[in-house]
Amino acid sequence: MKIDILTLFPEMFAPLEHSIVGKAKEKGLLEINYHNFRENAEKARHVDDEPYGGGQGMLLRAQPIFDTIEKIDAQKPRVILLDPAGRRFDQKFAEELAQEEELIFICGHYEGYDERIKTLVTDEVSLGDFVLTGGELAAMTMVDATVRLIPDVIGKEASHQDDSFSSGLLEYPQYTRPYDFRGMKVPDVLMSGHHENIRLWRLEQSLRKTLERRPDLLENYHFSDEEKTIIEKIKKEKE
Amino acid sequence: MKIDILTLFPEMFAPLEHSIVGKAKEKGLLEINYHNFRENAEKARHVDDEPYGGGQGMLLRAQPIFDTIEKIDAQKPRVILLDPAGRRFDQKFAEELAQEEELIFICGHYEGYDERIKTLVTDEVSLGDFVLTGGELAAMTMVDATVRLIPDVIGKEASHQDDSFSSGLLEYPQYTRPYDFRGMKVPDVLMSGHHENIRLWRLEQSLRKTLERRPDLLENYHFSDEEKTIIEKIKKEKE
Repeated sequence: MKIDILTLFPEMFAPLEHSIVGKAKEKGLLEINYHNFRENAEKARHVDDEPYGGGQGMLLRAQPIFDTIEKIDAQKPRVILLDPAGRRFDQKFAEELAQEEELIFICGHYEGYDERIKTLVTDEVSLGDFVLTGGELAAMTMVDATVRLIPDVIGKEASHQDDSFSSGLLEYPQYTRPYDFRGMKVPDVLMSGHHENIRLWRLEQSLRKTLERRPDLLENYHFSDEEKTIIEKIKKEKE
Repeated sequence: MKIDILTLFPEMFAPLEHSIVGKAKEKGLLEINYHNFRENAEKARHVDDEPYGGGQGMLLRAQPIFDTIEKIDAQKPRVILLDPAGRRFDQKFAEELAQEEELIFICGHYEGYDERIKTLVTDEVSLGDFVLTGGELAAMTMVDATVRLIPDVIGKEASHQDDSFSSGLLEYPQYTRPYDFRGMKVPDVLMSGHHENIRLWRLEQSLRKTLERRPDLLENYHFSDEEKTIIEKIKKEKE
């Protein structure tokens, strides 16, 4: 995969090197290029200017973004603009992006940008209903979530089979040594060595947690017969 | 505000210095301390260990986190654990956190942590329905969204009065120079100099965009009489 990132602050992306992204680059599975579009702004021109019609804040100008994108060597890239009004980023979207060969991220400032920039864009994407100083942290977050799903990037030791959202359920509680920490003990079943009982306990805990905290995740969930039986039991308790 | 961050990778937080957070620190409105809890792990012990009951991945142990939090000088901190099963982070949550004097963030790895760590925590928070390599990018994002709401952090030039979500509506399209960019022109009303017409056009664009893309935001929105009239007009067009 090749990722090109348009940003006024390329140095902000250093944390990606610490994450799975650094490993993916080492393995030759990923190339990331940063483009400071200030370098492509027309002579003596800035990257931002005042809004037509008045108002506070400065807007990113179209020209530096257009000229920068045109210089990028890409065939059919997904061009992602970070915008609070965009499609909400989620695991399904990350899985979709992980299939692509070329991604371009445009990091603006959430104060705004010239509307005409959107004609370059295939996806307007939002990280969530909150406002950030700039798009850089949002872009890094999306890159991290996406890159770890590229085949062979993640090792077996860090499998994402059991991730929340990948299975469709929230994760069950987990415990590690010591057995007794400040008087808080590990549930007996996990100490039993009985694999089938452990599996069932975990499944039930996942179902309970999802039902309690995120019932919306269960709306389109395909329950196995086993899961149906457990859900019935949980619902009966509450009656 | 004082923010304490528990992380195995303090060096990942460099981007915060480039954002509004750096400015808030310069102005003396914010103090951020990073705590590598590896330094508090018991002698010859690691920060993570295998899960009781079996399974892939390593879990964060409770002891280093407990001992690190106990060393932090704080009276009544909000202690935030980043967890995919937590409350969804949004602008309202950021506004809530911006009122606090002491925040503590615990960055785990999403592979998991010992459940007993949750007894230290006031808020389990999720950035969204996706899985990241670690909690660091999520913590930075939340800190950025929160710190920019602290009074006097943000200047007038970057007012957040007009932010998406703060007003409850998505933002209207904006344009800056040149008037004609590659044949794409700025809407006439914005060139008119007629302030009232511009205000009305922007309000209508905001309402249209919100209605089309995020009708959920309008469910609890308090419409002014003027907005009600515009919404009626838009809905009539669609009939």
